[in-house]
Amino acid sequence: MNTTDPAFESRLKDSAVATEALLVSLLSDQTLPDEVTRPAHLMAAMRHGSLNGGKRLRPFLLRESALLLGGNEQAAMRIGAALECLHCYSLIHDDLPAMDDDDLRRGQPTVHRAFDEATAILAGDSLLTYAFDIIAAPETALPDRAKTELVLALARAAGSGGMVGGQALDLAAEKSAPDEAGITTLQAMKTGALIRFACEAGAIIAGADQEHRQRLRKFGQVIGLAFQLADDLLDITSDAETMGKATGKDAARGKGTLVAMHGTGWAEEKLDALTAEAVDLLAPYGEKAFILQQTARFIASRQN
Amino acid sequence: MNTTDPAFESRLKDSAVATEALLVSLLSDQTLPDEVTRPAHLMAAMRHGSLNGGKRLRPFLLRESALLLGGNEQAAMRIGAALECLHCYSLIHDDLPAMDDDDLRRGQPTVHRAFDEATAILAGDSLLTYAFDIIAAPETALPDRAKTELVLALARAAGSGGMVGGQALDLAAEKSAPDEAGITTLQAMKTGALIRFACEAGAIIAGADQEHRQRLRKFGQVIGLAFQLADDLLDITSDAETMGKATGKDAARGKGTLVAMHGTGWAEEKLDALTAEAVDLLAPYGEKAFILQQTARFIASRQN
Repeated sequence: MNTTDPAFESRLKDSAVATEALLVSLLSDQTLPDEVTRPAHLMAAMRHGSLNGGKRLRPFLLRESALLLGGNEQAAMRIGAALECLHCYSLIHDDLPAMDDDDLRRGQPTVHRAFDEATAILAGDSLLTYAFDIIAAPETALPDRAKTELVLALARAAGSGGMVGGQALDLAAEKSAPDEAGITTLQAMKTGALIRFACEAGAIIAGADQEHRQRLRKFGQVIGLAFQLADDLLDITSDAETMGKATGKDAARGKGTLVAMHGTGWAEEKLDALTAEAVDLLAPYGEKAFILQQTARFIASRQN
Repeated sequence: MNTTDPAFESRLKDSAVATEALLVSLLSDQTLPDEVTRPAHLMAAMRHGSLNGGKRLRPFLLRESALLLGGNEQAAMRIGAALECLHCYSLIHDDLPAMDDDDLRRGQPTVHRAFDEATAILAGDSLLTYAFDIIAAPETALPDRAKTELVLALARAAGSGGMVGGQALDLAAEKSAPDEAGITTLQAMKTGALIRFACEAGAIIAGADQEHRQRLRKFGQVIGLAFQLADDLLDITSDAETMGKATGKDAARGKGTLVAMHGTGWAEEKLDALTAEAVDLLAPYGEKAFILQQTARFIASRQN
């Protein structure tokens, strides 16, 4: 497994820089048509919770999936920014005292620590809402049909039957430990749904037919599983300095993960198998799929 | 000012019953395509925060605005339900301990009292997300163009430059009292934006041209001002039993309202003027506008 492909790393980096620049512009204090004013304090909290943020893996997956199928790059960047706003809202709310009660995120104080709890709730609400604004905005050059499909797919991935539902199952799991099937469902929803959306959205942006859409969706599902498994492994094997957030928390809470259940050896084998499955899924696209296949390898082997 | 028009009251009641029935079906535990499962506990909290809920004024305004311009009634009902999900999310989050810290809403325990704080945060997040799901869903029989416009208008009305922005200004106002212009901006965003959306959405659903859309939008803006003024008056003159929630809270917090600034006499005159303005705005539609004009009168004179 190649974990240091310089061409891949540099493409991932470039994409993160471009996503960051787009988010900076989207999250400026400048008001849009139909808006009265954007309160500066709220916008600052939204920026704190979403800028300088990591690898931007989801926008990268979204853009590469769109490019694979011939989709418009600018539109893919904007949908990627929308997805990142939604992802960041979920982190802000997850970090709240009533939820995971985290003080540190990406090496920085969480939004409710840097501002206050009420502002963090509103900044999250606002980033979630803004994701749909960005998709529907005239600046996103896509047919209305594609926009409608993206809104629906994102809402399903993020709502009570997706990410938020997974978070609700996660809270319940602290009281009553789920079995293996329960953990798998929880993780497919909490972490998997947005990663799956990222890949499927590329197909929607490209206007690809159902066959391509289903294949990208399946690819997203498989790498989503790998992502969560790698995350659970890192929670055991890494330290807070490398991760930029608290580690060892799952074990401290007695929270069941598949790694805790089956051991790190099993998890590493499972990761290899998922990576192979993801790579195979994209074989029909030949060399064009190389970047996405490298992304699958990267996800399984990442160190933070 | 006629406050007891039985035909109007019965039409408002019928609409609330129909909206309730639609919300019951939309908020069932049944999963949708693309969903894994909907956690029962989360769905129960979403229902607690959105069913048995008051007059359903926003869906009523939306449906009547659509009908005025020849829009499809079924589609208008679904967009009304989406708007109500979004309105109810805002109430759930506003009631949280970190925000207004309310124990009572519509005579019932608030969601974080009936469940817990984490569940209330997630139930709100989920209702907000679901609003966009409902708009984009295939069951909502509207052209993709109209759906895109509705998503954009709702996201603008609800986001950092609309309702949530108004809530952020409201929190700031507890620390530093705004002047009259500041209060007006705050209220136009916090309460006004969704009421304005309700009226404008009717025009979008009907596929009406910009002239109609702007007129309905302006009507929504004017009755939104009246709604907030009536609310501030009621906070002074009514009691908790009639309102189903705590009253006198604005004064207790030293929160500035236009009523506190100018007195109840001024507020009643201003309400009459706003009602007359709203009624005049719809004069071009003749008798067809009677229901919406009655709604403007109802808003100004409501007792709870």
